[in-house]
Amino acid sequence: MQDTLLALNDYWAEQGCLVAQPMNSEVGAGTLNPATFLRVQGPEPWRVAYPEPSVRPDDSRYGENPNRLQTHTQYQVILKPEPGNAQQLYLGSLRAIGIDIAAHDIRFVEDNWASPALGAWGLGWEVWLDGLEITQFTYFQQAGGITLDPVSVEITYGLERILMALQNVSHFKDIAYAPGVSYGEIFGQAEYEMSRYYLDDADVTTQRALFETYAEEARRMLDARLPVPAYTYVLKCSHTFNVLDARGAISTTERARAFARMRALAHDVAGLWAARREELGHPLGRAEAVPAAQPAADTGQPPVGPATLAFEIGVEEMPPAEVSHTAQAVREALTEKLAGTRLPHGAISVVASPRRVVALVHEVVGQEADHERTVRGPRVAAAFDKDGNATQAALGFARSQGVEAEELARAEFGGHEHVVVTRQVRGRTAFEVLAEILPQIVTGLRAEKNMRWNAPGLVFTRPIRWLLALLGDRVVPFSLAGLTAGRTTHVHRDAPSPTVEVPSADGFLDLLTDHGILADADVRRRLVEDGAMRLAAGAGGTVDLEEHRDLVSEITDLVERPVPLLGSFDPGYLQLPAQILTTVMRKHQRYLPVQDTEGTLLPHFIAVANGSCDEAVVRAGNEAVLRARYEDAAFFWRADLATPLTEMRDKLTLLTFEERLGSMADRAGRIAAIAARLAQTVELDLDDRSTLDRASRLAKFDLGSHMVTELSGLAGVMAREYADRAGEGEAVATALFDMELPRFAGDALPATRAGALLALADRFDLLAGLFAIGSVPTGSSDPYGLRRSALGVVNILRTRPELASLTIEDGLRIAAEHQPVTCSTEALADARQFVLRRFEQQLLESGHSVAQVRAVLPRGGSPLHTEQTLAELDSLLGTPQFTALIAALQRVRRILPQDTEPTCDPALFDSPAEHDLHAAVQKLRSTLGDDTSLLRFARETGELVTAINAFFDQVMVMAEDPAKRANRLGLLALVHSPAARVLSWSELS
Amino acid sequence: MQDTLLALNDYWAEQGCLVAQPMNSEVGAGTLNPATFLRVQGPEPWRVAYPEPSVRPDDSRYGENPNRLQTHTQYQVILKPEPGNAQQLYLGSLRAIGIDIAAHDIRFVEDNWASPALGAWGLGWEVWLDGLEITQFTYFQQAGGITLDPVSVEITYGLERILMALQNVSHFKDIAYAPGVSYGEIFGQAEYEMSRYYLDDADVTTQRALFETYAEEARRMLDARLPVPAYTYVLKCSHTFNVLDARGAISTTERARAFARMRALAHDVAGLWAARREELGHPLGRAEAVPAAQPAADTGQPPVGPATLAFEIGVEEMPPAEVSHTAQAVREALTEKLAGTRLPHGAISVVASPRRVVALVHEVVGQEADHERTVRGPRVAAAFDKDGNATQAALGFARSQGVEAEELARAEFGGHEHVVVTRQVRGRTAFEVLAEILPQIVTGLRAEKNMRWNAPGLVFTRPIRWLLALLGDRVVPFSLAGLTAGRTTHVHRDAPSPTVEVPSADGFLDLLTDHGILADADVRRRLVEDGAMRLAAGAGGTVDLEEHRDLVSEITDLVERPVPLLGSFDPGYLQLPAQILTTVMRKHQRYLPVQDTEGTLLPHFIAVANGSCDEAVVRAGNEAVLRARYEDAAFFWRADLATPLTEMRDKLTLLTFEERLGSMADRAGRIAAIAARLAQTVELDLDDRSTLDRASRLAKFDLGSHMVTELSGLAGVMAREYADRAGEGEAVATALFDMELPRFAGDALPATRAGALLALADRFDLLAGLFAIGSVPTGSSDPYGLRRSALGVVNILRTRPELASLTIEDGLRIAAEHQPVTCSTEALADARQFVLRRFEQQLLESGHSVAQVRAVLPRGGSPLHTEQTLAELDSLLGTPQFTALIAALQRVRRILPQDTEPTCDPALFDSPAEHDLHAAVQKLRSTLGDDTSLLRFARETGELVTAINAFFDQVMVMAEDPAKRANRLGLLALVHSPAARVLSWSELS
Repeated sequence: MQDTLLALNDYWAEQGCLVAQPMNSEVGAGTLNPATFLRVQGPEPWRVAYPEPSVRPDDSRYGENPNRLQTHTQYQVILKPEPGNAQQLYLGSLRAIGIDIAAHDIRFVEDNWASPALGAWGLGWEVWLDGLEITQFTYFQQAGGITLDPVSVEITYGLERILMALQNVSHFKDIAYAPGVSYGEIFGQAEYEMSRYYLDDADVTTQRALFETYAEEARRMLDARLPVPAYTYVLKCSHTFNVLDARGAISTTERARAFARMRALAHDVAGLWAARREELGHPLGRAEAVPAAQPAADTGQPPVGPATLAFEIGVEEMPPAEVSHTAQAVREALTEKLAGTRLPHGAISVVASPRRVVALVHEVVGQEADHERTVRGPRVAAAFDKDGNATQAALGFARSQGVEAEELARAEFGGHEHVVVTRQVRGRTAFEVLAEILPQIVTGLRAEKNMRWNAPGLVFTRPIRWLLALLGDRVVPFSLAGLTAGRTTHVHRDAPSPTVEVPSADGFLDLLTDHGILADADVRRRLVEDGAMRLAAGAGGTVDLEEHRDLVSEITDLVERPVPLLGSFDPGYLQLPAQILTTVMRKHQRYLPVQDTEGTLLPHFIAVANGSCDEAVVRAGNEAVLRARYEDAAFFWRADLATPLTEMRDKLTLLTFEERLGSMADRAGRIAAIAARLAQTVELDLDDRSTLDRASRLAKFDLGSHMVTELSGLAGVMAREYADRAGEGEAVATALFDMELPRFAGDALPATRAGALLALADRFDLLAGLFAIGSVPTGSSDPYGLRRSALGVVNILRTRPELASLTIEDGLRIAAEHQPVTCSTEALADARQFVLRRFEQQLLESGHSVAQVRAVLPRGGSPLHTEQTLAELDSLLGTPQFTALIAALQRVRRILPQDTEPTCDPALFDSPAEHDLHAAVQKLRSTLGDDTSLLRFARETGELVTAINAFFDQVMVMAEDPAKRANRLGLLALVHSPAARVLSWSELS
Repeated sequence: MQDTLLALNDYWAEQGCLVAQPMNSEVGAGTLNPATFLRVQGPEPWRVAYPEPSVRPDDSRYGENPNRLQTHTQYQVILKPEPGNAQQLYLGSLRAIGIDIAAHDIRFVEDNWASPALGAWGLGWEVWLDGLEITQFTYFQQAGGITLDPVSVEITYGLERILMALQNVSHFKDIAYAPGVSYGEIFGQAEYEMSRYYLDDADVTTQRALFETYAEEARRMLDARLPVPAYTYVLKCSHTFNVLDARGAISTTERARAFARMRALAHDVAGLWAARREELGHPLGRAEAVPAAQPAADTGQPPVGPATLAFEIGVEEMPPAEVSHTAQAVREALTEKLAGTRLPHGAISVVASPRRVVALVHEVVGQEADHERTVRGPRVAAAFDKDGNATQAALGFARSQGVEAEELARAEFGGHEHVVVTRQVRGRTAFEVLAEILPQIVTGLRAEKNMRWNAPGLVFTRPIRWLLALLGDRVVPFSLAGLTAGRTTHVHRDAPSPTVEVPSADGFLDLLTDHGILADADVRRRLVEDGAMRLAAGAGGTVDLEEHRDLVSEITDLVERPVPLLGSFDPGYLQLPAQILTTVMRKHQRYLPVQDTEGTLLPHFIAVANGSCDEAVVRAGNEAVLRARYEDAAFFWRADLATPLTEMRDKLTLLTFEERLGSMADRAGRIAAIAARLAQTVELDLDDRSTLDRASRLAKFDLGSHMVTELSGLAGVMAREYADRAGEGEAVATALFDMELPRFAGDALPATRAGALLALADRFDLLAGLFAIGSVPTGSSDPYGLRRSALGVVNILRTRPELASLTIEDGLRIAAEHQPVTCSTEALADARQFVLRRFEQQLLESGHSVAQVRAVLPRGGSPLHTEQTLAELDSLLGTPQFTALIAALQRVRRILPQDTEPTCDPALFDSPAEHDLHAAVQKLRSTLGDDTSLLRFARETGELVTAINAFFDQVMVMAEDPAKRANRLGLLALVHSPAARVLSWSELS
């Protein structure tokens, strides 16, 4: 290990990094060292590397967990400004510490890093070595809430993990630290003792007082304009907070307050530091501006005949979800922009892999056709005076167009004759056109989450590093933001020659393929699927490609050349619930599980490496990672089984849900109470009632288990497993599982009544609470999954006839009554609208027309009823009777002012039509009673339609006598109100 | 700088050191890192190296002082157990960072390191590079008050200093830290801001509370048996204390209490750590026992004829003072031990240098002569019965001697005839004899301060590393404590061949000389003196060898081959007081000052390098060191001149003198008060009185100056300089200087009355105070210099007739009245005795006999009087009258019981002799009055002597009548009491 540290020091020093010392105050990560946190601020260049013992009191395990330590060693590198080749530099460092990067599978896997306490975030990757996360690699975007300019690259190595992998040991204590001395021998006692301190012995009152003291001292030093001492106290705050947290002593309110306080201090420190550096005149200078792009190659004229355009945008590894999105976006942009030119071209195709988007446009002609352009001047009438001489208007126009008045021609526009100038416009060359369009496409690229790097004007999910643009065999000459289009492409970084000169656009994709780059996602997907099936079959199993469709897509867009590998694990782990095993495989490792024909898990998995590697090495590495993770899981499993459920439940008091809405225990309590209230609205048998009762008391307990703490996706699943094993009975166990359903679009719905009620209570609580405090989803941000919750409510209610009497309004209102904050009427209405919009969206997506959906939706009642109404509407629409009904009701609605009182006095009637209508409406009302069924309403309104039509034919509604007019409108309102309860008729008109 | 760090990491890793990280909590030195403090405890082996940012709030200078930083970088190495070749390993590390050790003058200069707060100490050296201290090198003896076994070597590099020297820059900010980045650019802002914090802005109340909190948490963790977290809190305590200290917020009592508390915590941590490691079964194993010495070479028989014995004890650099002491001790031991054998030998000579003691014994014969040994048995009378048969006694004796009864011979002892056995004893070979004696000499070596190292059984000032023992050309075969005597000697470490095989004892010293080792101090001294004079003459000056005699001796014993070099400094510094310049040269650098014939300082100095080196390099290095020191001194000089004297005086409140005796300001106040009281006992004119008054108010102010803080030897000198320049007038300035006199044996005495009174007050205060609290010198320990103070008192009083009326008793009593603690009568008496013993010693040393000195000494009165009495005694002794007087008084004393009341009633006289004696004594008493002059007494007692003798001849003193007896004794007591006031007559009998 120490050789590795020395090698990293040497390597990064060679790259111009200052080798600094760890912070001499406890920090949780290398990022907190002022050599990072302060120095990334401002314009001064900075390159630094240092090891950092990173103290995480929460990770204290008495030295017993093989992978978790209260102090682990980070190695931290900052390159400011980001140099454009940080990934290559990083790979060089791996070589320097003896990792054969050609033999191993090294991957850059999307990771968006953020530290809310520091107000810091960035985009980048976890770096995987054969499936093991060994490094965090981030383009730092903000720190202390301040946008960083220039952007720094932060590289953070997890040394213990790297060393465990390199030395092939399975416990951190077994790492050879130096010749003859193990890690455990050096740090073992400190691990034990500091774990004791952090978990058991640290004095809470003392630490709380220290936190206050440190925060005050930091603030005082800010006031004294001394950011350096202020910052050391921010660090002490942070560590003290972590100690308190590990001692389980942080209440919800304290946590929120402490975070806010630290964030504010960090912000002020960063700002003050930047200001002080500016006052000092930036002693280290200013980072050099981005080097100007090479002048575009002077490639002369484009080919004369039609030629293929190959346009490649080279990117550092995009998040998988962005790969196809970006291909699509480029396809659309290119199509549209070409359409705006006169350049003839053939088919456009765009494919993409993590590191590139490749657009091919066939048969691009070398030149736009020449064309005429006519410029319209004043009308002829105004252009010449009565003598036929050009007026000032005409002269001015001619002058503006650079012609003589005599040269003005005439042409008709919209029936009027104008003077015009007509010019012959020469078509631009394809180079000219493309040099205009292609940069626009690059600068127009956007992803869901974007970043800046050292390329002003460009903003994208990850840095764009090269541009290849060939028209036939010629380079399209353009450049932007430091990039110059050329004919060089980049293949695998570990290839003998990582860059390749491309002779011609034709055959570009084949050339990439020859170099092991499969730019087309379809090709890659086929390789993943075929390989997985073949390998699974070899192990006597299969892979459920349908179930893992999203995962396969993700894998497909994580690699440029998929190399599926079959790995195995100890069958002993199969004793763990299969969902634990598959969750670990899928979520953490992106492995495909292998099962037998009955669907039973086999002790194998499919990992997909990127490009050629030493398969034995990569397989062994991935197997070791999975083993470590399963070992962890087995540890949690055993620990959880030894813990009473109520004890796990009690831990929820320490879990913050939301500052104003209390802890997770508070929320579980509310869910129980809400579920009980909901239960009163439906009939439950005794068994269901007692199941609900017991499950309510345990609600969400598994959030307090080790397993769910680690693998949050197993919430519910673990509740069922643990409840079952704790002898709670199947009904309770199932209800606890059910209450988490549905967890995602297309997930199962609760199978039991008790479970359904808990699931509803859960979601109503979430919606009412968060709307009450105004924490409403915006744009793509929906941290609490309110959209998913809303759909859950709808879908549960849609599928449970016994809950037909339960409306969304009622559910939200009951939930609102249990919130610790006031839920205003407006908030409640907004919440209801929010749920209805999700419902509407779902109904539209299942093929109903907007009009029909809108017609049925705004009514009250349960979604079940809404859906029935919609079905009835479907059956009625287009029938003559119903058409007539719609028309008749429209006549009523058209004349009726809003809010007309539905009341009339027959004494004021002065025509039989009025009496007839009144009689018809009275009859209908008594027939229907409370029934709002559309079918019934349609069936019972034949007479009414006739009466309505007769009324309008014979009666002047808007009589001059105000009393009569009011009486007639009141009569129509009486007609309208039962109809309005059934449908929004206006939508159907 | 960072290359240096990386090179040190690499180098020490190659030597099997773990490369550790700095402590992640502020520490003042690398020693505090648990990788040192905890790991040196117990038997486990440990090798570690690490850089340590060392925080010294007190050294904060806002980044402005070129050589002083609040955080400097130590590089720390621990080798446990000490490997026996740590000096060589260290020199290797200097080579590794690019220092040409052959070109430079690298020296190991005595330094005894101790950290009272940690209960830690060790012996070793400062390592000098061309006069610059670059490293502390210590054999760690105790930590946490616990004796270390095995002993570790601690090497602490001061990186900034090394780098400033290597890069030839004169401000730390100018060190090139990494390519293109200076130290100042990286750390400058932090230096400024943290200086601000430590000196100006840290909140004292907060820090005080933190200290309490940390100390309590440390204690709690000790109670929980968790030494690691406990220790982190001890470190936080220590740093917090340092912050408070830098803020000037530590009162005397607080300091003492804080130190005691930290020391107790450190002790308990160390003990607990050791205990815990033992419980854990010493996970790192136990340090291997010292390798057994090679078996002594089998060199067969010693030479037959007389041969020279060469015996060399090779030592790591001894403190200069120990070099000649050790030579002397070896000479004595060898002489004595050889005398105890029958081995004939010639002259013994012993010489020594810092690294060796060489004993030569000429003409050692190869074999002891054979001799007879007679064993005495029982008396003949008891050995044979009346029949002449052997008794049981004789038989038993014969049996015990292994002979038959018949073989018993007879011999006379003390007039009695005994049976005897006589044996022929064969003389041992010289090898046998020497193999017994020489190891005893080695194990018997002791110095003033001794250490242990990895050689059980050996204890000495520094480790003994080799033994050479040749008798003629043969090795004397013996070994001890891992060392085997051989024929290998070690020469200069940078020599092409650092070890040399010695063919024969003859010519050994010449062989050493050939290799540049001058073992004989006389030879070295001559080279130093001649070289210094020659070089000084070359610069038109001279060196006062007499004045610098001790320094020359020190230099002589600091090197094995003196190479004097002439260096120069900027004449501009000559504007500083010469004493500053020479103090820096002599005390700090061991340079000889060069002066012109008038004694005026010239801008040159003589440095003495050890062995061959690149003189230009070494000269330049030494000049740079002196320049930096003078720059510092000039800085202090200017800063002090800008500070009002009273402001410096006020700083004394922050300077602890002694816990119970208050701050230095308290002491200065007492001195002023005592001086005022003393002044009342003597006549002072108005000028003297006002001088005393003003000087009293400023007493010791210069202890608050920068200069004296740095160069404590200049106390008094700077007071005079600064007072003079502040316009206090020459009298006050001189008095302030005078009050510090005498500072050492042979120093001048105060020249002014005011100065003398202050000097006495100073010393009386010191004596009374420290005796009051029992802080009395023991053995060689006299931290407050009480012996020097006592002699000062005596010598001032001896030389100032105007103070003749001031006695030691009075001075001490007055001083006692001003102490903040009670000074008991016993303590005061002890203090007086202590002073008198010093006086006695001094008088004896000046050649007086013990009897005379004792006769005059116990009297009261001033030393001046005592000395007069002594002189008078000298003149009187041997005269017939005085001899008669002594005899007469002895007759009186012999019969007089102690405590006889000197009173008598002439009415009870019954003989004229009584009346005569009574008349004589009455006359004498009235003649003498209060006069206690011996000469006068002798002159006036002729009659008395006659009367005494007559009395004893005629009167029976011990009359049977008790009344008469008592009356006669009372009469004799009347005679005795005036005599006793003059002299202790008993001493003269």
